[in-house]
Amino acid sequence: MLLDSPTVERLVDAFRRLPGVGKRSAERLVLHLLSAPEEDAYRLSEAIRSARERITTCSICRNLTEDNPCVVCADERRDASVICVVEQPAGAMAIERGGMFRGRYHVLHGVLNPLEGVGPSELCLDRLYARLGGNSVEEVIIATNATAEGEATALYLSRQLAQRGVKASRIAHGVPMGSGLEFADEATLSHAMQGRTLLH
Amino acid sequence: MLLDSPTVERLVDAFRRLPGVGKRSAERLVLHLLSAPEEDAYRLSEAIRSARERITTCSICRNLTEDNPCVVCADERRDASVICVVEQPAGAMAIERGGMFRGRYHVLHGVLNPLEGVGPSELCLDRLYARLGGNSVEEVIIATNATAEGEATALYLSRQLAQRGVKASRIAHGVPMGSGLEFADEATLSHAMQGRTLLH
Repeated sequence: MLLDSPTVERLVDAFRRLPGVGKRSAERLVLHLLSAPEEDAYRLSEAIRSARERITTCSICRNLTEDNPCVVCADERRDASVICVVEQPAGAMAIERGGMFRGRYHVLHGVLNPLEGVGPSELCLDRLYARLGGNSVEEVIIATNATAEGEATALYLSRQLAQRGVKASRIAHGVPMGSGLEFADEATLSHAMQGRTLLH
Repeated sequence: MLLDSPTVERLVDAFRRLPGVGKRSAERLVLHLLSAPEEDAYRLSEAIRSARERITTCSICRNLTEDNPCVVCADERRDASVICVVEQPAGAMAIERGGMFRGRYHVLHGVLNPLEGVGPSELCLDRLYARLGGNSVEEVIIATNATAEGEATALYLSRQLAQRGVKASRIAHGVPMGSGLEFADEATLSHAMQGRTLLH
C-alpha cells in the first residue's frame, strides 16, 4: 500500500484500470505524478477531461473523431466505393499509419461474442448496411482481427453482404513481413499456405 | 498521428511524459480512455487532480503524505533514534513494504549530481541535520541507490555525519535473494565478497 492515503489509492486504482498497467507500474506512475512539477499532473488531468469532452464518434463511419464527420469521411478524395470494416478505432489508425488504403472505414466497436451477449444488433451493423444503399459501395474489406471472434464476425458479415449483393473480401493472414517461418504459429502458417499467390 | 486531433495529441503528449510510456503505449492508453465508459476517464482525471491537491511532503521527513506529519513520523511506536535516508519516496515505500524497518525516514528527493547542478544545498540536508540535534538520533542508515550518484551521496553524507558525531551505516549490496551468482554483475559480486559475514 502506497502512502496509507485513500487519495493515492484511488489514483492507483484508476491507473490500474488502464490496459497493460499493473499494480507496480500504477504505483510508479503515481509517484512520478506526485514528484514531477505539478503542471505536468494538472496538464494530464485536464487533457483526459477535454479529450473525453471533445472526441465523439463520426456519424458516418463511427470512428473516433474531433470533427463530425471525421477527416476520412469528409475527404472527397477518399474512395467512397470501398469500405474497410474494423473492430476498433485502433485498427483504422493502424491501417491509416500504413498510408496504403484510400477508401473509407466502418468501425464496429466490438465483435460478435455470444458468450458475452454481443450479437449483430450490438455492433450497429444497420449503420453499415445503410451505407451500402444506392449502389455506390463496390467492395467491403473485412479487417476484423484474426481471433476466433474476429473470424466469426467476418464470416457472419460476409454472408450478410452476399445477401445484399455487395462484394466482400477479407484481409490476408500469413507470415508477418520481416519475420521468419520459425516464429509463426501453425494457424498462421496454414493461412499463409492457403492464401499463397501464384508468382507466374 | 492519432485521429488528426489536437486534443488527442495533447493527451498523447501528456501520457508520454510519464516514465516508461512510449508513443505506442500512450496511444493505446488514449484509445482506451476514449472507448471506455466515460466515468473511467473522468475518474482518472479527477483522481490525478485531487492527489496533487491533497498530497504534500511531510514537514519532518519530507516523504510524500496526505497528513502532516506523515504516518511514520506521527507513530510513537516507531524508533526515532534510527533514521533511514533514501533518495525518493519510492525507496521508503519499498522498505515499508518489507515491514522489517521500525525507525524513521528522511527523503532527499534527489542525489548529488554536479553535472546537473545538484549540490548538497539542493537536497535540503539542513533539515536532516536539524533532526540530529538533541542527541536523540543514534544511527543514520544511508539507503541511497547503488548508482554512481547514490554512492557519491552516501560518501558525502557519511563524512558530514562523522563531523557531527552521528553513527552512519550503509545498506548491504550483494546478490539478490532468490537469484544465482551467474545473474549478478561483477560490481555486485565484488560487493558481495567484500561484504561477506562470518558464519562461525
